[in-house]
Amino acid sequence: MKIHYECFACVANQCQRIVEMATEDIELRKKGIIEAARLMSSISENSIPAIFGSEVFLGVYRTVGNYDPFRKYKELSNKLAEEIVKDFEDVELKEAIKLAIIGNVVDFAVGYSPEELEDDVRAMMKEQLYIDESEELLKELSMAKRLLYLTDNCGEIYFDLLFLKKLRETFPHLEIYIAAKDGPIINDATVEDLKKVGFEEVGKVISTGTRIVGVPFGLVSKEFMEVFEKADVIIAKGQGNFETLSERKDRRVFYLLKAKCRPIARELNLPQGSLLCIRAR
Amino acid sequence: MKIHYECFACVANQCQRIVEMATEDIELRKKGIIEAARLMSSISENSIPAIFGSEVFLGVYRTVGNYDPFRKYKELSNKLAEEIVKDFEDVELKEAIKLAIIGNVVDFAVGYSPEELEDDVRAMMKEQLYIDESEELLKELSMAKRLLYLTDNCGEIYFDLLFLKKLRETFPHLEIYIAAKDGPIINDATVEDLKKVGFEEVGKVISTGTRIVGVPFGLVSKEFMEVFEKADVIIAKGQGNFETLSERKDRRVFYLLKAKCRPIARELNLPQGSLLCIRAR
Repeated sequence: MKIHYECFACVANQCQRIVEMATEDIELRKKGIIEAARLMSSISENSIPAIFGSEVFLGVYRTVGNYDPFRKYKELSNKLAEEIVKDFEDVELKEAIKLAIIGNVVDFAVGYSPEELEDDVRAMMKEQLYIDESEELLKELSMAKRLLYLTDNCGEIYFDLLFLKKLRETFPHLEIYIAAKDGPIINDATVEDLKKVGFEEVGKVISTGTRIVGVPFGLVSKEFMEVFEKADVIIAKGQGNFETLSERKDRRVFYLLKAKCRPIARELNLPQGSLLCIRAR
Repeated sequence: MKIHYECFACVANQCQRIVEMATEDIELRKKGIIEAARLMSSISENSIPAIFGSEVFLGVYRTVGNYDPFRKYKELSNKLAEEIVKDFEDVELKEAIKLAIIGNVVDFAVGYSPEELEDDVRAMMKEQLYIDESEELLKELSMAKRLLYLTDNCGEIYFDLLFLKKLRETFPHLEIYIAAKDGPIINDATVEDLKKVGFEEVGKVISTGTRIVGVPFGLVSKEFMEVFEKADVIIAKGQGNFETLSERKDRRVFYLLKAKCRPIARELNLPQGSLLCIRAR
């Protein structure tokens, strides 16, 4: 997916919140923002929002000298999500898919406060998925040998873990690879985060080889590309994975996400806020 | 006043709203935003927000091919303000000063909806000015020969007109010059707007000689500078005039404004939202 006109101000607003989270020093915040302005001028009609944004954010991190401004936000998201997920441990597989999609609501990029998570999860459990191709996903998984699961954010990963546990019970033959970022970038989960939370019980935890959000081809590692290429089914969580993968129209990919922002909703031609389990086409 | 770290995202958000007001064409909006990104990379530690913003906005206007995207917003602001001001025609001079400050609430830059004007005016009339140096202003005016009045936004100008009428009654000896922008820029009043509304009854309407907001020295006309230099008292309305004049510490200047955004409040070291009549120092 290419940028939409709203992506520029969205990245600018995220940069502002990043410098606020990264440092109390007003002058250093200003330096970070001026660096953001310099980096943001590289935007073009063909920029992919997740890649464009990540490169700007990492430049701001460098300028303000903070490697992981989201540490506390991520810890809080994880703590709250862990509690909530405990109440859903006995759900059926289909419910677990829905929960994995709902968990995608935890997203700094859209200004989400993790404190709202419990209420939001319970409210969204009553909603229908706007597009539900989960039957097709389960059919593909029943025939698949290898699954690659692309994670998105902290907090959300507890919902992923629940879903993966159910998948493992249902499809014990499946070889599962779970990918996360190589290091901190906004509130995305890192390889370290997945290991800490226990993902090694359900599959092999791997790095995309980069801190850039999504699957930025050309920037991911050779090792990751090998896993990507040999996967029979790919479950891609969240907007960043969608943005970087959508133009490939790779039929192995199923997107599980909430269409949180207007550009994603416009790109998919559906209402903003929709919950989706949708096969790439 | 130099930029604060929040100014960048604020200008980016304004650019987004500008392209939305300027055109329904999604692709043209994107072109406008990419031009904004290019122009915004000129930001430096020493940028003055009003000048930096105006130059970016005018670049966006050129790219989307709309000379005055705020025409309707300005017309609505004027229409609503005209109605409201009718209820206050009999106020005392001091009340008229307060109304002129309150009128400064009409500001696109901070996302103001003109529909809220009536309620907001009535609520703010009950507030105290946070800093009130109006006695000093009136004393200076009683001794002055020439007043230069720097207007700010449409809508607000009806409050200015009421105040100027009261000034004229109180100080009939005063030679009054009222300045506005040379052409459309966001929701600022132009010379044409002032003339249409009847400012020529209270003084001489002049142009700053530029569409750039505030008093951007070096960009204003020679004719304007002559009036500026010979004025005994200068009343400067709103944030843009403050931003461009503040570093001169020109004791002839009295700022009448509402400190609407965090950078202005931080610069003046007072609470955001404060109503002010304050002498330059």
